Amino acid sequence: MKLSRLGEFALIERIRRWTPIGRGVRLGIGDDAAWVENPAGSSLITADLLIEDIHFNLQWTSLSDLGHKSLAVNLSDIAAMGGVPAYVILSLGIPAHFDSQQIAQFYRGLAILAQKSGVYLVGGDTNVAKSLIISVCVIGHAPYVPIRRRGARPGDDIYVTGTLGDSALGLKYLRQKNSSGKQGPLAQLLARHHRPIPRLAVGAALARGKLATAMIDVSDGLLQDLGHICKASSIGALIWDEQLPLSRAYRKLAGREGTRYALSGGEDYELLFCARPRARARIDNLARVAQVSITRIGSCVPAHQGIVVIDSTGSKIASGTKGYDHFRKY
Amino acid sequence: MKLSRLGEFALIERIRRWTPIGRGVRLGIGDDAAWVENPAGSSLITADLLIEDIHFNLQWTSLSDLGHKSLAVNLSDIAAMGGVPAYVILSLGIPAHFDSQQIAQFYRGLAILAQKSGVYLVGGDTNVAKSLIISVCVIGHAPYVPIRRRGARPGDDIYVTGTLGDSALGLKYLRQKNSSGKQGPLAQLLARHHRPIPRLAVGAALARGKLATAMIDVSDGLLQDLGHICKASSIGALIWDEQLPLSRAYRKLAGREGTRYALSGGEDYELLFCARPRARARIDNLARVAQVSITRIGSCVPAHQGIVVIDSTGSKIASGTKGYDHFRKY
Repeated sequence: MKLSRLGEFALIERIRRWTPIGRGVRLGIGDDAAWVENPAGSSLITADLLIEDIHFNLQWTSLSDLGHKSLAVNLSDIAAMGGVPAYVILSLGIPAHFDSQQIAQFYRGLAILAQKSGVYLVGGDTNVAKSLIISVCVIGHAPYVPIRRRGARPGDDIYVTGTLGDSALGLKYLRQKNSSGKQGPLAQLLARHHRPIPRLAVGAALARGKLATAMIDVSDGLLQDLGHICKASSIGALIWDEQLPLSRAYRKLAGREGTRYALSGGEDYELLFCARPRARARIDNLARVAQVSITRIGSCVPAHQGIVVIDSTGSKIASGTKGYDHFRKY
Repeated sequence: MKLSRLGEFALIERIRRWTPIGRGVRLGIGDDAAWVENPAGSSLITADLLIEDIHFNLQWTSLSDLGHKSLAVNLSDIAAMGGVPAYVILSLGIPAHFDSQQIAQFYRGLAILAQKSGVYLVGGDTNVAKSLIISVCVIGHAPYVPIRRRGARPGDDIYVTGTLGDSALGLKYLRQKNSSGKQGPLAQLLARHHRPIPRLAVGAALARGKLATAMIDVSDGLLQDLGHICKASSIGALIWDEQLPLSRAYRKLAGREGTRYALSGGEDYELLFCARPRARARIDNLARVAQVSITRIGSCVPAHQGIVVIDSTGSKIASGTKGYDHFRKY
């Protein structure tokens, strides 16, 4: 046995010599997606593992929404690198009590978003499990140089797409089961929570135009994800609380919480990026073309100043990166 | 919200026009791996989801072995297409009681095989979970035309690499906790069960030489996996029981079970393939170079004859595809 194993691995080396394949890993673990580059092209790879009762609760999440979201969070990682997603691999662990209609609902939710995003479901694995397990891997192309978390410099502007805090505020009401008199705006918040829209076009356009110096998607909360950019880029950040983009529904329902959920709620799946001030006009134009609001919310500062949020009077109202914690149970 | 979403997806279309990316899915769900082809090159993608107490039992599996095996089963799928693996994405759901040393053992088992196989761990996701969940996705190159399950014709020879049944017979003794007087051979069987060696070099060499007409890896048992080839190729198969390659350890411990575990035990992770009779000399030569035994075990026959196993007297001793069932609990 031993000898034959050695032979196998020796032959692998020979096959590699026959086969001129570069396998340059440009970026491994530690950014939104891995970036690999071959003579043949550049790819982005990202994966997420979602586990029932840790990442989602079927009491208040439909299977169709869950299908959508499982793909959306991975597409958002590809968007945050400026990539173009191509393939999705889906592995499911399914409790024995599920019926085929429930599985079909899940697939439908995923498939509709896949089709809209130009992504093909190409494979995966299906097994029985005690609780629902969803493992999604998305592979994308990197036609432009991917935008990493590092690259921002003091003096750069800080932008975010869409609005912040909707998802987390919606989740708060969902947990409280307190929706009397709030149905309209709450439905809008919950749509953001259940069916986030990955900002693929904006991400790719930013990469194509070399407009962003650093980028991440907001999954753990603005401050925490900004912290990742600051750490990777060795900078600090100044955020203007008043500039945070809030939806009408959020303003209606946030009450005394103010911008708390916008700052550290999480699961927004908006793009947070930095750009040189000279890029402002082009970014405004991109927002118009994409019909996505892009809001300048602050500035990059030297690292020793840390991350600071100030209100309109210039008072510090928050500092540090405390955000949403995925390990916290629902 | 609605408008801006429409805008986003419209811009995605525009990005696609900017970006000449073909996303030809040559082969989706239903073979060992997906096969996708771009102007830039050809890729193979495969994934497996392994769940504690369904696919493995930590009572009799070390974390290092589990790390090895989690990768090996995916590499085996790439081997079965004749591909060259390149990247692995690993997502783990880890019970809270695990310590970092245990996780390190798992990674070490996986990393050693990855290095030997020329595969890079490029990303993944890590979460808490109630029981251990392992989701592995492997992406490989297809420098040669991938070998599919369909393509075999009546008259083709049927081959298998290595030996069959070791893993399943070892698992049987493991469950019985009955190893008195069998330590030596049992250890050999268990090594096959815990640390299968993906036949990457043989798989790629078969594809390079266009030697195999159809191929699959034996994960569910010879008969069941042969059934997949037969169905995809619209053929039947005649297997000579006496030709089944059995290890010395298997012969020692199988007793009255005979070739039962070799026929339908499962988890062998050997390559099962069909080839034209004129390829015999080249296949023998490949076995010598790779130092892997390759045994001719039967012939492809017309579909209406089904799958039949005959003994040396020509008597039918088994027919059909009944094999190992992954859904059966340990």
